[in-house]
Amino acid sequence: MNFSSKLLENAVAEFSKLPGVGQKTALRLVLHLLNQDNADVERFSIAMTKLRNEIQHCRTCHNISDLQVCEICASRKRDHGTICVVEDTRDVMAIENTNQYTGVYHVLGGLISPMDGVGPSDLQIDSLVERMKAGEVKEVIFALSATMEGDTTIFYLHKRLKDYKINISTIARGIAFGGELEYVDEITLGRSIATRVPYESSLSK
Amino acid sequence: MNFSSKLLENAVAEFSKLPGVGQKTALRLVLHLLNQDNADVERFSIAMTKLRNEIQHCRTCHNISDLQVCEICASRKRDHGTICVVEDTRDVMAIENTNQYTGVYHVLGGLISPMDGVGPSDLQIDSLVERMKAGEVKEVIFALSATMEGDTTIFYLHKRLKDYKINISTIARGIAFGGELEYVDEITLGRSIATRVPYESSLSK
Repeated sequence: MNFSSKLLENAVAEFSKLPGVGQKTALRLVLHLLNQDNADVERFSIAMTKLRNEIQHCRTCHNISDLQVCEICASRKRDHGTICVVEDTRDVMAIENTNQYTGVYHVLGGLISPMDGVGPSDLQIDSLVERMKAGEVKEVIFALSATMEGDTTIFYLHKRLKDYKINISTIARGIAFGGELEYVDEITLGRSIATRVPYESSLSK
Repeated sequence: MNFSSKLLENAVAEFSKLPGVGQKTALRLVLHLLNQDNADVERFSIAMTKLRNEIQHCRTCHNISDLQVCEICASRKRDHGTICVVEDTRDVMAIENTNQYTGVYHVLGGLISPMDGVGPSDLQIDSLVERMKAGEVKEVIFALSATMEGDTTIFYLHKRLKDYKINISTIARGIAFGGELEYVDEITLGRSIATRVPYESSLSK
């Protein structure tokens, strides 16, 4: 692209580094910002810098937080005997939105992925094992993506946790509610037949 | 969405204001920035603020520029007798990329759109008329979107310019190169039959 301005080119280059943002989209976003008031753009910039500089992670569950201990970990209404292990803060938000879960979380900060050079020591795994030692935890639920990386991580975590007296489970896999059978991929369909549940128990949930 | 952090929520809110960016995408982009170095995020923020504060518009054609007169208007290689009228800087970039046009530009900064409250006085129209008065201009080409707003703007501009001794043209409309006929919309197809060109003259272009 031929830019008429170096400043414009720089701004577009910065935006293009974001995931899923190509040069054309970046240009559209930058031109939009150019049409805003100085104060609006200033506010945008400050929000990013402030976020990066001041954000904290909860020292118990490692979720993104403004405080040293996040609201969920600090809450007395939550069941601190159940820990749901997730990849990142987006998963916490997704599960919180279901209003179905009353336990606490543990945010790994990623998944084991040898291809990307992410090993167990890069994730919050030791601190998860540490949480078992207090003896308060009764159940650990793995809510990780149904991918190779997710399965590898679950396999490794299970090895690390299996000597503690806790229930270990993973969230159910199968066809989605509202999903039409003919569009479901074969692996999911095959597995959901293999792991079928008695009709009456499926009703009670 | 339930955010675990006010800082995160603010940053997501700022990103969501960008066109075509919803809350989920904004969250993805913000979390990506969070994973970058402080210096990278700082550079991102500075690029935006600097752009907004220091950008200039060429005083002749009103294209975005780092100087008072843009490179195209300052160039002796360009034909200053031909002005291509466009909506914004993206259109200048698109036309420059064709390597077909050797004239200069005039950037209106938008299109007349009563629905959005944009009238002729909000656009760089007076300055376009002013450029006619020097008598150097031989041709004005309208390269505006083939929309209601584009047509309205062309209609208005034609009224303002028709008393000057210049050729006024609009870029050709029709089916795109590589376009399959069955997928072309009826209006375009109908018009491109009505405005058909002799085969031999279409070859020479």
